Amino acid sequence: MTLSLTEVNALKRPPAVEGVLPVIHERWSPRAFSDREVSSADLHRIFEAARWAPSSNNEQPWRFLVGLRNTQTHSSIAAALAGYNHDWAPKAPVLILGMTRSRTVRRDAPNAYALYDLGAAMAMLVLQAQALGLATHQMGGFAHAAIRQSLGIPELWVFGSVTALGYQAEPAALASEEMIAREVAPRTRKPLSELAFTAWEEPATLGG
Amino acid sequence: MTLSLTEVNALKRPPAVEGVLPVIHERWSPRAFSDREVSSADLHRIFEAARWAPSSNNEQPWRFLVGLRNTQTHSSIAAALAGYNHDWAPKAPVLILGMTRSRTVRRDAPNAYALYDLGAAMAMLVLQAQALGLATHQMGGFAHAAIRQSLGIPELWVFGSVTALGYQAEPAALASEEMIAREVAPRTRKPLSELAFTAWEEPATLGG
Repeated sequence: MTLSLTEVNALKRPPAVEGVLPVIHERWSPRAFSDREVSSADLHRIFEAARWAPSSNNEQPWRFLVGLRNTQTHSSIAAALAGYNHDWAPKAPVLILGMTRSRTVRRDAPNAYALYDLGAAMAMLVLQAQALGLATHQMGGFAHAAIRQSLGIPELWVFGSVTALGYQAEPAALASEEMIAREVAPRTRKPLSELAFTAWEEPATLGG
Repeated sequence: MTLSLTEVNALKRPPAVEGVLPVIHERWSPRAFSDREVSSADLHRIFEAARWAPSSNNEQPWRFLVGLRNTQTHSSIAAALAGYNHDWAPKAPVLILGMTRSRTVRRDAPNAYALYDLGAAMAMLVLQAQALGLATHQMGGFAHAAIRQSLGIPELWVFGSVTALGYQAEPAALASEEMIAREVAPRTRKPLSELAFTAWEEPATLGG
């Protein structure tokens, strides 16, 4: 007996703070994905959202490899996932490899902000997905060299994440008790006093 | 005679795509900021939004130094801004230095995703600000060594951005014709065919 999808989403939601965007508070990273496909209209919307992210000098260094189920790209991405991720993520109908150009186009110089900008674009993407009723789960645990080789990606591009995208399923659909336990565990975050400071090691006092 | 604030915001908005979050399409990075202060309740909301960003192994490596006008932190951040940024950004009532922990807490190992995760948290922050009627402008052009020294920040922390936060002002409030021209120039982004691919160099066909 575990929590239902509705119950787990209620559990994962942080205490309400008036005025905070619902997509931000409601987003979390489930592991239980259903078979249901993502429409191409919704894929268009989520990449449109990523497209308008800001970037250093407007380089827009990000690039996304979109693996749809039953394609070589999906299976190559899935094959590169590290142990635990490999147990649940291949079931997601879409696996997105997020990469970023390590050198600027403008000056062909190292882009120190390439990964920062990719992280920002992916954040836009996951919030847009949330707004469409889709779930996302970004992963850092995958074999970079293996994925580079199997997909033929030049060294110029560095990897930032693999993201599972699809519709959330009931926690009970997961394959093991351990995964179910993780799925229904409360979310944790540091308090604001460990995030925002007015000077080095002086926490900011933020009104409620 | 230049565009008004209302006109410039209309100009900057991308062509509508049904279903895309308004905060994502409406956000852009102005340089004209008004004197109006940001309330501490709104500061609380925007850092609350950043707080719930996802991160690799939930490390939450980000940290923010919040410089409010007429503080040492604000002037130290402002002093480190590169030439062009220095001409407009110090007028913003809040300057935020975004930094990230270069080594994991869990294993004290290099965190390859530290900047990626900071970029994601800042994306949540800027969208939340947009939702509150505030404007943001992230900058990569600042003197990292100078800001580290003047604010006494250990090497463990690496910098990702300085962000100007406040209320948008009329473009005509900017100090030079060149700045006004930039402020009212249309936004540009690569087409989706240069972002999303189904295999290496095979653009995805995304429904509209």
